[in-house]
Amino acid sequence: MVATRSVLGIDLLEGIATTRAIRRFRPDPIPEADLATMLFAATRAPTGSNRQTGRFLLLRDDPVSLQAKQLIGGAARSAWDAKRASDGYEDGSGADPRSPKARTAAAMEHFVDHFAEIPVVVLPCLVRYRPPHPTEGSNIYPACQNLLLAARALGYGGVITMWHSAVEDELRPLLGVPDGAAMAATIPLGVPVGHHGPVRRRPLDELVYDGAWGRRATWAVDPLGTRHTQAGPPETPRP
Amino acid sequence: MVATRSVLGIDLLEGIATTRAIRRFRPDPIPEADLATMLFAATRAPTGSNRQTGRFLLLRDDPVSLQAKQLIGGAARSAWDAKRASDGYEDGSGADPRSPKARTAAAMEHFVDHFAEIPVVVLPCLVRYRPPHPTEGSNIYPACQNLLLAARALGYGGVITMWHSAVEDELRPLLGVPDGAAMAATIPLGVPVGHHGPVRRRPLDELVYDGAWGRRATWAVDPLGTRHTQAGPPETPRP
Repeated sequence: MVATRSVLGIDLLEGIATTRAIRRFRPDPIPEADLATMLFAATRAPTGSNRQTGRFLLLRDDPVSLQAKQLIGGAARSAWDAKRASDGYEDGSGADPRSPKARTAAAMEHFVDHFAEIPVVVLPCLVRYRPPHPTEGSNIYPACQNLLLAARALGYGGVITMWHSAVEDELRPLLGVPDGAAMAATIPLGVPVGHHGPVRRRPLDELVYDGAWGRRATWAVDPLGTRHTQAGPPETPRP
Repeated sequence: MVATRSVLGIDLLEGIATTRAIRRFRPDPIPEADLATMLFAATRAPTGSNRQTGRFLLLRDDPVSLQAKQLIGGAARSAWDAKRASDGYEDGSGADPRSPKARTAAAMEHFVDHFAEIPVVVLPCLVRYRPPHPTEGSNIYPACQNLLLAARALGYGGVITMWHSAVEDELRPLLGVPDGAAMAATIPLGVPVGHHGPVRRRPLDELVYDGAWGRRATWAVDPLGTRHTQAGPPETPRP
């Protein structure tokens, strides 16, 4: 049975504000009806001229899917090892194991070690109808966000990653992804270890400009009690 | 007062399934508190490593913003004239004024004629930290989707467009957008003429693959009563 309302009774704005990136999953499988609900939500997102150029390739537990997950997991391990060093996850505040940086690093360690055990991995792809372009993601990433929000609504979680990119040349023939389709992301899904909750960002008035670049929107105030965070490593280059 | 729950009491999954592209707006202004709520929602979306590289430049009713809206509106008129012809909006089913194609065309006509009167136009931008890439949109389009969903929650609506692209060279100096920031979209926002409601897509099992490209996911069934639509013009090239 495909759900059309959130089983947890979550309000739209509340769901948006409390959908965290989830990288640790319980081994619990995801029932197909829940997958259908999440993918129904994903495919409600807009695409240019409603061309519906998005395709959602699921890796579950058949042998080829497991092989694909192992490939991506290996790539994730290599990429994370490099990123941990280059982005300084062990420096500065990262030396304190309770810091957000250190906790992200610990979650990442667990994530890459257990990638192949993740119940479902979604590979959102974009069937191109024009040459590759930096704005083409407007046809697929809104769907990825819908997928994560719908996961939240049903008690699951996930995260948008690019871990496939290092092994794309091996994944394409394994899964039969044609040249005309761009592999846009790797999104693991499952029941979270830990939980969703308010996401933390920089203060709103640092992200919103009113009428001209850099002009502060004085009315762009966060809701009372909002906790902030700095941008992730490395520091965003300021224009 | 920044709302953290939907004033309309909309459920998360229901909101996702009923957020339509809105192209016709009443002249009603959008109170700043509602704008803050929508932008708070937009900025809750994920970005790679939580770098928070998205910036949201708003065009409201100051003279420079009006000039920018007029520029974009003019570009929209030219682009739509070309698209209407090349995509055959007046051919086939488009000859019937009640067809989805003809109704989209009529909405587009109104949209481009009245663009400069739209209460708020959001220009989501991406502060790049690496060279342009087809996947960079994963850092900005999830936020665009959150923005549209939050608009839905508060009784507004909008649509992701690329109308800025033809006049980007004029917009950048006018608004002070630096070279290091990519202009990712043009999103008009306002109170809809007409209303939101179930969005129509192709059947779910045409968009979801299970374990390999093209392998039908037999469990990927739409909720009972779902109405379908074909892909928009031109027909998606099948890989």
